[in-house]
Amino acid sequence: VPRNFALAGRLAGSSSGARMFGKVAIIGPGLIGASVGLALRRHNLADSVIGIGRREVSLQKALDIGAVGSATLDVAEGVADAGLVVLATPTSAFQHVLAAAVPALHTDSVLTDVASTKVRVVATVTSALRERPDIAYMPTHPMAGSERSGPLAARADLFEGSVCILTPMTNTYPTTKSTIKKMWETFGARTVSMSPQLHDALVARISHVPHLVAAALMLLVREEDALLGGGGLRDTTRIASADPELWLGICRDNREQIRLALDQYGAILREMSDSLKTGDLGKLEHMLDEAKSKRDRTTYNRRALRD
Amino acid sequence: VPRNFALAGRLAGSSSGARMFGKVAIIGPGLIGASVGLALRRHNLADSVIGIGRREVSLQKALDIGAVGSATLDVAEGVADAGLVVLATPTSAFQHVLAAAVPALHTDSVLTDVASTKVRVVATVTSALRERPDIAYMPTHPMAGSERSGPLAARADLFEGSVCILTPMTNTYPTTKSTIKKMWETFGARTVSMSPQLHDALVARISHVPHLVAAALMLLVREEDALLGGGGLRDTTRIASADPELWLGICRDNREQIRLALDQYGAILREMSDSLKTGDLGKLEHMLDEAKSKRDRTTYNRRALRD
Repeated sequence: VPRNFALAGRLAGSSSGARMFGKVAIIGPGLIGASVGLALRRHNLADSVIGIGRREVSLQKALDIGAVGSATLDVAEGVADAGLVVLATPTSAFQHVLAAAVPALHTDSVLTDVASTKVRVVATVTSALRERPDIAYMPTHPMAGSERSGPLAARADLFEGSVCILTPMTNTYPTTKSTIKKMWETFGARTVSMSPQLHDALVARISHVPHLVAAALMLLVREEDALLGGGGLRDTTRIASADPELWLGICRDNREQIRLALDQYGAILREMSDSLKTGDLGKLEHMLDEAKSKRDRTTYNRRALRD
Repeated sequence: VPRNFALAGRLAGSSSGARMFGKVAIIGPGLIGASVGLALRRHNLADSVIGIGRREVSLQKALDIGAVGSATLDVAEGVADAGLVVLATPTSAFQHVLAAAVPALHTDSVLTDVASTKVRVVATVTSALRERPDIAYMPTHPMAGSERSGPLAARADLFEGSVCILTPMTNTYPTTKSTIKKMWETFGARTVSMSPQLHDALVARISHVPHLVAAALMLLVREEDALLGGGGLRDTTRIASADPELWLGICRDNREQIRLALDQYGAILREMSDSLKTGDLGKLEHMLDEAKSKRDRTTYNRRALRD
């Protein structure tokens, strides 16, 4: 029997009313991790969910909102009998957490992560798993979030109507892939698969640069001026409120792709500026038209996140 | 009796239950104009509201939603017996509309506009009024809107919780100023007064550059990629859906200030890019921290606008 062959069966139990997973361990039950916990429980996918974290106060919040049924500060203890382990800490903590978790992982269990970057993350996790060929690893990136952070910002429906990008390894077992894919789809997400490289170039454009763009707008405006702004300023800058530590980590992990996309973006702004400078606004008109057409065709019917 | 001395009395009528205005003419009852109409009627500030436009189909919509009680395609006829005339067309139409309206304005009536730029607008209106020293002009800019346009996007509460910038002329009568100010405050807006020059420099930063920034993001991303984006991309690009014709007009009117602010903005992005290039992320960390602090201190409790 190949490794993980019996994954779905083992994780799901054998009775007809079986859940998708037995015990699930969530390392880092913050905004995303705790939302996964809430969604697992809402959809009745797990026999039990345990939260693993560094701070008791944060774990208590995850317990209070019902994102996890139990909690521990001890990584090894928490993952020991879990069939699925969800790595949901900032990526800067991955190496440290994996050092404690990997030796304790249950035979043939599944490890997944929800990080916003993939190339460096996959290298880190793969390296940490080199002595554990029995562990199936499936990297994912749910494209959902909020400018808020921590378990109190979590929502059971956070992933409804969102997209989850999967970057399966060439050696990821089909059963592992389909189980994780099914989990996200049960949470209401549409799944898309691509390579970690393609993922990182893509999210630099659709997520990381928009974040820097929002932050830069807040640096352009004076605070007293910002208070006079309308809905346009409010919405274009909302994500500037996100956790700077998390975003600095993302910038560190995906530095090259973000810089590339940011420079492409800067060139677009310079075209606009040149059009304004010369007074030949035909170019700008064309750009505004194209931007509107594209935005109008991009239907965003996902659940609204607001401040 | 000085001009406009009896403005409030004349406009309001003389009975004890008097409304603030007699007849109000709204030239261009689109998103903003029709919202003014709805708000006037909700707060019972006018005896009657007439809509003046170029297209019957658009005026019919304004009538259908109750933003205006009557409508006409004839500018001179529409403004003839109005105590207050609200200029709410794109600024590119101002000269043409004013040529028809000015000779027909009722003696001592009040003219206001709701345009997004002020220096050029004030020059245009002042020039058009040179033969009509009896007309009191009060330029305003309600900082409210939507990426949608036209009367069907109008809302009676559009201005609730928003800011309305007033740029009174040195020769604007105190009664005119206080009446218009009172109108916006009754609509739920906070009013702020400043010079047209200061206004244009300010809105370049807090409104016009954010618009170009949103449009440029839509030009950076491929359409099929944009569909994978999350709430961050959705919100940072929402205003890219706004009417390109309107925004091109704004860019034309406020070309110098927008270019100046856009170049300042480009310099901020280059600082970020340099930090990513060298790998010395301390600078970027500092920028993200400052952006978050500023955004967090800028409370936006205005009514949410969504797609």
